[in-house]
Amino acid sequence: MEPVILVSVSEIMLKSPYVRRQLQSTLLEHLRWKLKRSSFSNFKTTIDSGRIAISGLSDTRAAQECSHVFGVVATMNASKIVGDPDRLVEETCAYAATRLSEGDTFAVRAHVAKPYPTSGIEIERKVGAAILARLREKNVTVNLDHPTRTIHIEVRRGASYLYDNHIRGYGGLPYGSQGRLVGLLSGGIDSPVALWLMMKRGSHVIPIFMDMAPYAGDDYKDKAVDVARKLREFAPVSKYGIIIAPFGEIVEEILSVKEAKYRCVLCKRMMYRVACAIAGRQRAVGIVTGESLGQVASQTLLNLSTIDEAASLPVHRPLIGLDKMEIQALAQQIGTYEISIRKANGCRSAPRKPATSARVEKIRTLEKGLPIDSIVTNALKRIKKMDL
Amino acid sequence: MEPVILVSVSEIMLKSPYVRRQLQSTLLEHLRWKLKRSSFSNFKTTIDSGRIAISGLSDTRAAQECSHVFGVVATMNASKIVGDPDRLVEETCAYAATRLSEGDTFAVRAHVAKPYPTSGIEIERKVGAAILARLREKNVTVNLDHPTRTIHIEVRRGASYLYDNHIRGYGGLPYGSQGRLVGLLSGGIDSPVALWLMMKRGSHVIPIFMDMAPYAGDDYKDKAVDVARKLREFAPVSKYGIIIAPFGEIVEEILSVKEAKYRCVLCKRMMYRVACAIAGRQRAVGIVTGESLGQVASQTLLNLSTIDEAASLPVHRPLIGLDKMEIQALAQQIGTYEISIRKANGCRSAPRKPATSARVEKIRTLEKGLPIDSIVTNALKRIKKMDL
Repeated sequence: MEPVILVSVSEIMLKSPYVRRQLQSTLLEHLRWKLKRSSFSNFKTTIDSGRIAISGLSDTRAAQECSHVFGVVATMNASKIVGDPDRLVEETCAYAATRLSEGDTFAVRAHVAKPYPTSGIEIERKVGAAILARLREKNVTVNLDHPTRTIHIEVRRGASYLYDNHIRGYGGLPYGSQGRLVGLLSGGIDSPVALWLMMKRGSHVIPIFMDMAPYAGDDYKDKAVDVARKLREFAPVSKYGIIIAPFGEIVEEILSVKEAKYRCVLCKRMMYRVACAIAGRQRAVGIVTGESLGQVASQTLLNLSTIDEAASLPVHRPLIGLDKMEIQALAQQIGTYEISIRKANGCRSAPRKPATSARVEKIRTLEKGLPIDSIVTNALKRIKKMDL
Repeated sequence: MEPVILVSVSEIMLKSPYVRRQLQSTLLEHLRWKLKRSSFSNFKTTIDSGRIAISGLSDTRAAQECSHVFGVVATMNASKIVGDPDRLVEETCAYAATRLSEGDTFAVRAHVAKPYPTSGIEIERKVGAAILARLREKNVTVNLDHPTRTIHIEVRRGASYLYDNHIRGYGGLPYGSQGRLVGLLSGGIDSPVALWLMMKRGSHVIPIFMDMAPYAGDDYKDKAVDVARKLREFAPVSKYGIIIAPFGEIVEEILSVKEAKYRCVLCKRMMYRVACAIAGRQRAVGIVTGESLGQVASQTLLNLSTIDEAASLPVHRPLIGLDKMEIQALAQQIGTYEISIRKANGCRSAPRKPATSARVEKIRTLEKGLPIDSIVTNALKRIKKMDL
């Protein structure tokens, strides 16, 4: 038997044959990238009737790394039966002998994915009986409902596989297969999750941080950079970086507007304008932001629509229907939560009571006093890209 | 002791005192509506330091109904200690006697939410010891890690409560507190989930079904109506209905466009236009749709942006970052899944290979041949509202 990592994918399998092949080959590339980045080498990837098999690796950590690639539903450390397929029963018994301990209960689950003379149920019965006979001295027994171990057999076209474990992946679609976006990233809890969800669905998302210094601290920027570094682990591409746009002078202009309660909406509209301008240069077709309806006073339907009006590209808000608790749970899963809750000096220019119903007409009037075009042009001239 | 239903809320408690009071009072109204609709009567609602208590109800089904109200994180069938608060230990013992059976293990968890002479830990120790002494003959023992039953004690300003169960709610914000939207509802799996998520976040969402007859069957419309009826259970308002817009003639116009692959994008753009026009009449400030990035060939970033361009109001897509499997799981939770998977005669006019990169310029050229304004006006004249 030879150690392999089996990879199961889901939505990809529902696509037309042409699209499926494309997505599978992208996914293979990403798995190789991920493994190499984690210093694994000397492995070989193959596709066999919908399953990806990576041979030459027996490490659980390798299976773990693969489970973090978007498009992967689960990974399994498995054993590949080589040679005569008729040796299935015998080989499974040998495998079971290494996996079952004294007094264990077990179940056998067989999945037959090719024209094969024996059905899954028949295989389960045969193998179950053979294991009982072979491991009589270990006092193992069958328990189909709550076994200590479930031994899975997969009979595929090219080979058969055995495994008794699986690591859940995130699902989604291969990174970059669904186009390019830019994402507004702060050091907070929400925006990293928003970017991550669009990355999960296959977008290449370029993070942009609006640097409000001197109206926010450098420690706040550091958080955003650290968060981007964490997101970078999910982006199986050679070039990835965060774009840092200077925003302090823009804040200064906005502070000149007398009606303080509208500042947040004015500021967001400027952020969206700058983000859309950067998106244009990056050949991105939309922006991602982390708003959730009603989470804070300023995230009302009316404010969001007034903010959107300033964007020249579609705004995607994957968190719009989620609760704070759900977003926090995702942030913990992704690994950004611990970074995001670090204390830092965020925006110092927010009014105490931001407007909850800022109408476009009102905002447009206030914006008449702001040199919007030159603000955007200046910011664009001074953006920095930090490779991660 | 008096039976009560305790209701815990989460995000509402994070709001400013003024907003919190508003949301709590809306939530109380919704709980009363829900209970009356389920034929419960003779109950009284009170708020005590952040917890809502509904007295006069001991039915588990009542607690279940309350858990389906948005804004509720959990509900508990509890017992309220009336009279002398010093009788806490005694009353808890009496409660434990009715809840613990022969050989059970238990733990006591106390939460003290008011200035009280005894700390939570002290109460736990005292009550634990008292239960052990009192129920000696039942052979009950303490197990803090995996007890058969956990007895919760909540000491609040107005009263103390005992419970050993809880039903999880959906969270979110009180229905209608976050403004009005219209939602495009088909009989499929996704759109009901999209509408539900925005309802959960506090929007009043009015469902619109685009009736493609004769290019789709009446059974397809029936599914949408049944789905809307299910969503109605989450809308604690006296007036709720589905809007049915005639769309067959619009499809006929679109079928006259020679380049078949663009039909779906053209059709969606017309749907958005009609939906936005209806939204205007309904004082709604945006539309909700069920697209998920890359789920089907037509849901590309470019297509979505071309479709959005036809909308005069913001488009909210709460499913944009979710996988099909995640959406299906939500549909099952909501109760729309079984309706959505019923076989029905959906759209018969879709091309075999819809375009995946329909650019706005191209679509605008094709639309020149369509009498868009009169199409929308005609549809608006003939919409029907079905009360649910």
